[in-house]
Amino acid sequence: MSLNEIAGPVNYNSSYVPLQTTESISCEEAFSTKAFRNISEVVVSSLEQYLQNIEPVSGLALTDPAILTQKARSLMTNASEEIAAFDENRLRKIIDLYTKTGIQVHSKGYMGRQFSGVLPLSGVFDLVNATVNQPSSFYEAAQLPNVAERIMQEELNKYIGYPEDTFTMVTTSGGSLANLTALLAARNYKYPNVWNSGLHGIQPEGRPAVAISENAHYSIKRAIGIMGVGEDQIVKLPVNDKNQIDSRRVPLMLKKAKEQGLHVFCMVASACTTDTGSFDPLEELSTIARENNIWFHVDGAHGASLLLSDSHRYKLKGLENADSFIWDAHKMLFTPGTCTLLFYKDKQRSYGAFRQDASYVFEKEADIYTALDSGEQNFECTKRPLIMNLWVSWAMHGKAVFSQKIDRLCYLAAEAYNILCNENDFELVHQPQANILCFRYVPDNLDPEVHPHFQLNTRNKIKEEGRFFISKVELNGQEVLRVVFMNHEIEMKHFRMLLQEIRRTGQDIIAAQNGRSAQHKLHTAINIL
Amino acid sequence: MSLNEIAGPVNYNSSYVPLQTTESISCEEAFSTKAFRNISEVVVSSLEQYLQNIEPVSGLALTDPAILTQKARSLMTNASEEIAAFDENRLRKIIDLYTKTGIQVHSKGYMGRQFSGVLPLSGVFDLVNATVNQPSSFYEAAQLPNVAERIMQEELNKYIGYPEDTFTMVTTSGGSLANLTALLAARNYKYPNVWNSGLHGIQPEGRPAVAISENAHYSIKRAIGIMGVGEDQIVKLPVNDKNQIDSRRVPLMLKKAKEQGLHVFCMVASACTTDTGSFDPLEELSTIARENNIWFHVDGAHGASLLLSDSHRYKLKGLENADSFIWDAHKMLFTPGTCTLLFYKDKQRSYGAFRQDASYVFEKEADIYTALDSGEQNFECTKRPLIMNLWVSWAMHGKAVFSQKIDRLCYLAAEAYNILCNENDFELVHQPQANILCFRYVPDNLDPEVHPHFQLNTRNKIKEEGRFFISKVELNGQEVLRVVFMNHEIEMKHFRMLLQEIRRTGQDIIAAQNGRSAQHKLHTAINIL
Repeated sequence: MSLNEIAGPVNYNSSYVPLQTTESISCEEAFSTKAFRNISEVVVSSLEQYLQNIEPVSGLALTDPAILTQKARSLMTNASEEIAAFDENRLRKIIDLYTKTGIQVHSKGYMGRQFSGVLPLSGVFDLVNATVNQPSSFYEAAQLPNVAERIMQEELNKYIGYPEDTFTMVTTSGGSLANLTALLAARNYKYPNVWNSGLHGIQPEGRPAVAISENAHYSIKRAIGIMGVGEDQIVKLPVNDKNQIDSRRVPLMLKKAKEQGLHVFCMVASACTTDTGSFDPLEELSTIARENNIWFHVDGAHGASLLLSDSHRYKLKGLENADSFIWDAHKMLFTPGTCTLLFYKDKQRSYGAFRQDASYVFEKEADIYTALDSGEQNFECTKRPLIMNLWVSWAMHGKAVFSQKIDRLCYLAAEAYNILCNENDFELVHQPQANILCFRYVPDNLDPEVHPHFQLNTRNKIKEEGRFFISKVELNGQEVLRVVFMNHEIEMKHFRMLLQEIRRTGQDIIAAQNGRSAQHKLHTAINIL
Repeated sequence: MSLNEIAGPVNYNSSYVPLQTTESISCEEAFSTKAFRNISEVVVSSLEQYLQNIEPVSGLALTDPAILTQKARSLMTNASEEIAAFDENRLRKIIDLYTKTGIQVHSKGYMGRQFSGVLPLSGVFDLVNATVNQPSSFYEAAQLPNVAERIMQEELNKYIGYPEDTFTMVTTSGGSLANLTALLAARNYKYPNVWNSGLHGIQPEGRPAVAISENAHYSIKRAIGIMGVGEDQIVKLPVNDKNQIDSRRVPLMLKKAKEQGLHVFCMVASACTTDTGSFDPLEELSTIARENNIWFHVDGAHGASLLLSDSHRYKLKGLENADSFIWDAHKMLFTPGTCTLLFYKDKQRSYGAFRQDASYVFEKEADIYTALDSGEQNFECTKRPLIMNLWVSWAMHGKAVFSQKIDRLCYLAAEAYNILCNENDFELVHQPQANILCFRYVPDNLDPEVHPHFQLNTRNKIKEEGRFFISKVELNGQEVLRVVFMNHEIEMKHFRMLLQEIRRTGQDIIAAQNGRSAQHKLHTAINIL
């Protein structure tokens, strides 16, 4: 179906003509319960239709922003002084336009990134959050969410293994914010005056520095820039051939850093990395960190969810030694973006991220209620009750809805790896540790000199054609194709279809170049003649 | 209705007994379109019932967290290896418990804070965001949201007045994050090497410092602590009797700061303040900032929405000179939390918040699509398509749904002020400039020596009794009661009811104390006898 069919007969070439508004309503009507009901019915039935009619194998239909802008503008009211009445048809067209132009995460052609079609219960529950609409940084404004946080922290710790009485969990809006918060807690703990004095004002044993993997997520580097430490003070830890930090080489790196006048106050490991889904050796690294009096933080945004799987939990051994770690529920726990869980081994330290004094001083009027406030521990003033989507799913379906899907997704990556082992025109670059698999298409007739960006171009052409959506990353300076299995409905036949698509597309690129070369030779020959 | 009636016959005193799960389902069933439909129906009808049955005047029912925890635990499945089937009754009970224990923002007893019952269209649309579930930091993953951002930036600039070709708008998750982002852009612009070198590594004309109002929101101070400048480097600007920065005294403060070795690189004004809704004199302050080569940032989280009102727009005069300002759509534009708009006068500078080089360098493979990416300008990697709720409301209803409600809310505050002018037992502390009003209850029989926290205690007792929800703040060391009008259905009769409630409650507190004093005197007399 074309964009035009879905969203109505708008002529892209016509200039922008806003809809004529025929009816106006009062403010009271716009905010009424009746409006809520009517709009809900349209939204739910539109989304149901969208979900029912997903193309079995489709990716993304990229639209020229100028065309999409015109289309969007054409759906806007031109009422100015009056409130235009709710128009069911117009809302349906907007939803169609939105869903149609999105990446088709519910389709089996989607193997691209770490977001996915959410668990319906978790997604639909957002409507409750939006209607109750209260910030959950304070118990009085969000009683059940705050209680749910404490329950989830207990439930999840069954698989983490922190000492029960001393750990804590804070929810925050996304992995980048959680990483920043943890790094601030580390900075402020190691330099007790820095919150007030600033980095100019402290006299540490050396320039404050953070040791991170070469493959760390960009949000870690960002956090270091934000908090005034400076990216020059990043100590990059080398990785082995499995893209894991090579823990044997870390002590020497730390020694060298010290000789260069750096004072490493924090070390960050990944569980797992974004690129290849590799788990750093947490146990060894935590020991090194402890011996060197360094705060040990783990970015478990993607991989911490493997804690819930009996088959994969072992990959996170040593996480229980981390001073802090993060876990994105909006990745492998299938909640809508964003819900990040930030864990601290020592609850006291969670109070240090945003102030001078990390010891938790009760407010003047402290009571059993304000004891559950998290406003001092999380960055947000107005914080969406992120935990509710996760807790409700956990409460209603139980842990198995997560672990069964996670096991399935990791199995798909392992199976895809096995398939590629037997395909001579593909090159594997790692064995999958999670649900992420990177590889290269290297047919015999590929000349890397002629096609320096062959993987990237193949990926982009596949994306443009819109049947599959995969991603690409750069590993050790080399472009590779990357598949992330987030849809449990994918079967190996779909992966095989993807391989065929890669072959066809790649060969098209080679043929087009050969055609151009032949033509060029012909032209040259003609010119000579 | 009691909590018990709403959420079922659970005995609070019994120990935790999880529900027996009778039926299990497959992963496919849990993620199915049928599940989406069934759950949606339960959620929509539960919420409709909740909205229909709002008590006309009610505030908050505070529940002991231990009791609520037990209640929440009792609604959780005990399934472990299998996926428990969706249980409609259980979900209804959870929603009841959630809505019942929330602050009743849809009731006319709610006059407490800056969040509110959202515009239904805006709230319900969250369901689409949650289902499409794609990060909007990149055009390819969220085409319509990115187009909607550009449209909203144009629409809103009609009321701001930035030069059309050079300004930009970035959406981000909440006012605190937007303030931090703008202050980072300012820091990195003024100290071009700081992103890499860190604050240790730069040699500025003095210690980097930020000038802010005495009444600035706490997120500004937090940002200064986070980015390594340090709270000691805050230059506090004095306010006048309207709680506005006293611009005549600012030049002297800046001169003094310089003499103390501080280099003020950024000045932050409020439009309006959180406490009293006061608008700083933006025009005068922007001139001073320009003359002193200082980045001028405005925290318009609450008050920027008054730009949409023909009657109130003049309060923001000078905003068009700000280098950056923020605007929370989840406050006075009635979208669910959180959606913050961050504006920059100079688009180029928006690229400097999170990196060394502020000039926008196109990616290797730049095209018409990636030109709309915002991942370099906003902090989030996974960013919810926050703009959609606002754009859809704007597109469907037009600007008037916002301006009519804003006018109404400001009118309520003005009317309430007029009423208090004639009540001798109340003391006004300011004339309202927005929809926020602070005052004190000072009956003749109040002895401030005996009741040093009379305002606070009165407010807390009102909150406990659950009919009204108001807030309190400290102004110049003095506790005051604070009313925020966010519900357009409130009439002056409800405000008069609130005043009666304050009187009754306050007199109860005085009487109880007198009773205690009398009893104490009696005891003393008996002891003497």
